[in-house]
Amino acid sequence: MPALLTYKTPVLAEWVDYNGHLRDAFYLLIFSHATDALMDQLGLASTDREASGHSLFTLECHLNYLHEVKLGAQVEVRTQLLGHDRKRLHIYHSLHLLEAAETLAASEQMLLHVELAGPRSAPFTGAVLSKVEALGEAHRQLPTPAWVGHVIGLPG
Amino acid sequence: MPALLTYKTPVLAEWVDYNGHLRDAFYLLIFSHATDALMDQLGLASTDREASGHSLFTLECHLNYLHEVKLGAQVEVRTQLLGHDRKRLHIYHSLHLLEAAETLAASEQMLLHVELAGPRSAPFTGAVLSKVEALGEAHRQLPTPAWVGHVIGLPG
Repeated sequence: MPALLTYKTPVLAEWVDYNGHLRDAFYLLIFSHATDALMDQLGLASTDREASGHSLFTLECHLNYLHEVKLGAQVEVRTQLLGHDRKRLHIYHSLHLLEAAETLAASEQMLLHVELAGPRSAPFTGAVLSKVEALGEAHRQLPTPAWVGHVIGLPG
Repeated sequence: MPALLTYKTPVLAEWVDYNGHLRDAFYLLIFSHATDALMDQLGLASTDREASGHSLFTLECHLNYLHEVKLGAQVEVRTQLLGHDRKRLHIYHSLHLLEAAETLAASEQMLLHVELAGPRSAPFTGAVLSKVEALGEAHRQLPTPAWVGHVIGLPG
């Protein structure tokens, strides 16, 4: 099973800088919408959240900007589950022009499952746990993408 | 010389989720505005950019979300120059309530100086180089903040 296609969008006027290039924070907004779509697929959509009282919080995010993206470009996000434990998802998003191989930006993220009433961290249970385990199994053989585990530092 | 106070803002309604909490991408937008302010201080403000044909591009960003931030909160960003070479700045931003010690979020970033006509990477020169070197010297004795150099991974 390949990475999931989680989000498609044109690059909107309110996301670009004075040069017509996608601004750094809005790469992350696109990835954030992709995380929302992943949550939908795992049974944590907003309607499920209200019923279950659970959601995912982002603990940590790493983003590599590999190419400029211009106003109006049609882009898509592909999402891979790198790993998980009882209450965390370690995920990887990549940004591409529609159906293109080239990676425009890469983001590794750690998400925590929380009980909103606390908020406090909480193990996955029931149908959500089953879906997390099934996706983990489906993505277990995918290669680890470049940039995963990267440390920021000056060269040399 | 302490970290620079680079940006102050209230948390705006368009930045929060359905729970009234600052959404992950908008922490980065606040840090992006702080980077703009740092550029101003280094002689790379938009007016300087047009005159010089140079700017800074974000290559890589790491973000740690430590506390929730609510709609209407008054926040500020403090910025430290961790290091630099001929054409790169390695910086650290931290987000706080006004004048508070507690860190709400931390972001380590690598920025590249570019000649916009290419665009291609370009060494710092002239007044910008002098300001980069002066800030590097001023921040050389500051301790390395927690989270710098952190690798994302599941615990254990």
